Amino acid sequence: MQINAERLWARLCALAEITDKAEPWTRRSFTPLFLEGRAWLEKEFAAAGLAVSLDAGGNLVGRLPGRDPARKPIVLGSHSDTVPAGGRFDGTLGVLAGLEVAQSLQEQGITLEHPLEVIDFLAEEPSDFGLSCIGSRAFAGALTQDMLAMTRPDGMTLAEGLAYVGGRPDALAEAARPVGSIAAYLEVHIEQGRVLESEGRDIGIVTDIVGIHRERIVVSGRADHAGATPMNLRRDALVGAARIIDAAYRKAFARGTGDRPMVATVGHIINQPNAANAVPGRVEMILEVRSGDEPAVAAFTQELLAEVAPALAELGVEATASPISHVAPAPCAEPLRAAIARAADSLGLSHRPIPSGAGHDGVFVSRIGPIGMIFVPCRDGRSHAPEEWIEPHQAATGAHALAAAVLELDRTLAR
Amino acid sequence: MQINAERLWARLCALAEITDKAEPWTRRSFTPLFLEGRAWLEKEFAAAGLAVSLDAGGNLVGRLPGRDPARKPIVLGSHSDTVPAGGRFDGTLGVLAGLEVAQSLQEQGITLEHPLEVIDFLAEEPSDFGLSCIGSRAFAGALTQDMLAMTRPDGMTLAEGLAYVGGRPDALAEAARPVGSIAAYLEVHIEQGRVLESEGRDIGIVTDIVGIHRERIVVSGRADHAGATPMNLRRDALVGAARIIDAAYRKAFARGTGDRPMVATVGHIINQPNAANAVPGRVEMILEVRSGDEPAVAAFTQELLAEVAPALAELGVEATASPISHVAPAPCAEPLRAAIARAADSLGLSHRPIPSGAGHDGVFVSRIGPIGMIFVPCRDGRSHAPEEWIEPHQAATGAHALAAAVLELDRTLAR
Repeated sequence: MQINAERLWARLCALAEITDKAEPWTRRSFTPLFLEGRAWLEKEFAAAGLAVSLDAGGNLVGRLPGRDPARKPIVLGSHSDTVPAGGRFDGTLGVLAGLEVAQSLQEQGITLEHPLEVIDFLAEEPSDFGLSCIGSRAFAGALTQDMLAMTRPDGMTLAEGLAYVGGRPDALAEAARPVGSIAAYLEVHIEQGRVLESEGRDIGIVTDIVGIHRERIVVSGRADHAGATPMNLRRDALVGAARIIDAAYRKAFARGTGDRPMVATVGHIINQPNAANAVPGRVEMILEVRSGDEPAVAAFTQELLAEVAPALAELGVEATASPISHVAPAPCAEPLRAAIARAADSLGLSHRPIPSGAGHDGVFVSRIGPIGMIFVPCRDGRSHAPEEWIEPHQAATGAHALAAAVLELDRTLAR
Repeated sequence: MQINAERLWARLCALAEITDKAEPWTRRSFTPLFLEGRAWLEKEFAAAGLAVSLDAGGNLVGRLPGRDPARKPIVLGSHSDTVPAGGRFDGTLGVLAGLEVAQSLQEQGITLEHPLEVIDFLAEEPSDFGLSCIGSRAFAGALTQDMLAMTRPDGMTLAEGLAYVGGRPDALAEAARPVGSIAAYLEVHIEQGRVLESEGRDIGIVTDIVGIHRERIVVSGRADHAGATPMNLRRDALVGAARIIDAAYRKAFARGTGDRPMVATVGHIINQPNAANAVPGRVEMILEVRSGDEPAVAAFTQELLAEVAPALAELGVEATASPISHVAPAPCAEPLRAAIARAADSLGLSHRPIPSGAGHDGVFVSRIGPIGMIFVPCRDGRSHAPEEWIEPHQAATGAHALAAAVLELDRTLAR
């Protein structure tokens, strides 16, 4: 089965052009620009022969009937909103690749056994309400009344924002799909890293959307005069923090790059008093650990602190950790990974298993059905930035793999 | 020879009370409060029988004639200005201990061979003009026209500030004492550290006012998505910085606490982008190294970077250093150290050699004659803070040791 690579690329470019001109590429959820993008998408969905609707959770849904009306749908999708000054492909590729597959199927006279849905999920990126994956939460029945009451800086509530984009906050139950109600969810996305590019792979088959665990680590020492305090009388909190930072790096590195890799990052650090002539007395930092291996993620910080305890005791400093947030990993379903691999093999595409270090709508969709993700390489791993880039042939490869995987699943999934 | 411990303590308390009541203990140079303190000091100097003058550099000078008018003066002093929300003893102890010695000498009918001068140097602490040790610079002929042109935030120049406190910016040459024109300079000061307190010593005999070298170190890596970038593809600048911070600590620590100890401090750090979900791309920090061993101070940073080079190469990050400032150490004169030690022994005081990690007026006075410093312990090393504290008996011990050292020097110094 072929897809129309030129049409896909033209759509990616056209949707990208619906941007805040002063700060490309920006199409924030809950803005007039977002609605402009949605109107364009709705038109494209309809022109491709999809039955278009907007669900109560603000998700744009295009549907093709299947040959067997009793079957659960195969769902393809992603999101059309962006971060401020983001890129042109994060999210849009998944929506437009899904649309391309649906349109090509019809053009080539192929009717699936399963119904096919293409969904643009609402507000996958962190919104001004302080929440991300709003549409996919609603889709999975996980958008709560508490969340609807969240406000953005201008005072608007999320319930009002949802109504603004055409959702129905009072009818969220209608948007929530029951557990077990979808046959499969497939999403094409740019990798947002440089593993595939550095290895020259055509696609990555996602193993898990990793769990993300964040801890606040506070290192307490004693602020002192940097001139008048000899080394042996110091309790330098920044030296203690340095030992923790290096140990966290080495600990995650030591897991290697195998099936269930792990990343650990101290990305945020505040040093006090942060003066050139003062021994640091207190350091606060955020340690973030991500992996598909949930027990390892959950245990990481306490193991780390136990490992560095002697090195901290030597300095006379103490470290305490308190959890900030925890998101469990969302594993991709084995049958879907296998179907994508067979599809890629049939197309002669090189591939490798790869964890998704970033979050995606699939995290929530996985609560109601099996998910699979296809990553395409992106230039130098850049994402959430204007220089985010993929080549037209890479977009086409992603859509082509998606189409083949859909056919494979349509053939092999049990009724 | 005795000194009057009660009078000394009463004067320390009285001068401390001349403070910004809203932010004790604050008596900033070039303010009405500073002039109020100066007026009080002038009255006390005069009442103690000293001939009082204000030199062109804004230093308050009290003078007692010696038996031999051909002799160069023995100079005692320190400063009466404070940092904002500073302490009650930093500086004032040296001025008032000097006054106490001069007054006690007269009360006990002792006339020295040498003239004796007690000096309150102008603005030892960093002033609003961005300069410290202004009076002692003038005293040593080191206050330049460029410095006089420095301005404080309200636009006043240092020349105007000097005139405000009674100095004569056009006649600075009159304030500059020629090289070799003083017999000795002695200053009593609180330690500002906790070495003497932790060892239970009565006084410290300063070996050097340490040199202070500051370098800006920039660690360059690559900012990346913390989720999508595996450990082996990272170039984490903060991990590189952590290795430098720990190595600097270990390198200075390894010198031990012997005759020429060293301290190295990374007190200031800026991490970019400093977001929990971003691999740090750039870290800037200030490394400060202090020691009386000037060659070791000068070589420290380059040696350090050479030592950590393999650990940084392993991370794929680079570090560069550029000097910010360098102040050479000011050694205390051996004969003065020996005289203070004999004086302390004669009084039964325990003592130890100790470097001064903080700067003092002696740095500049050492350019024109031999200097010596006596440290007294202070509580928990606190200084430049309202909780700075010494016990009355510790102040008295410092003045007593100073008096005995003055007599020792008066007897032993060559004409």
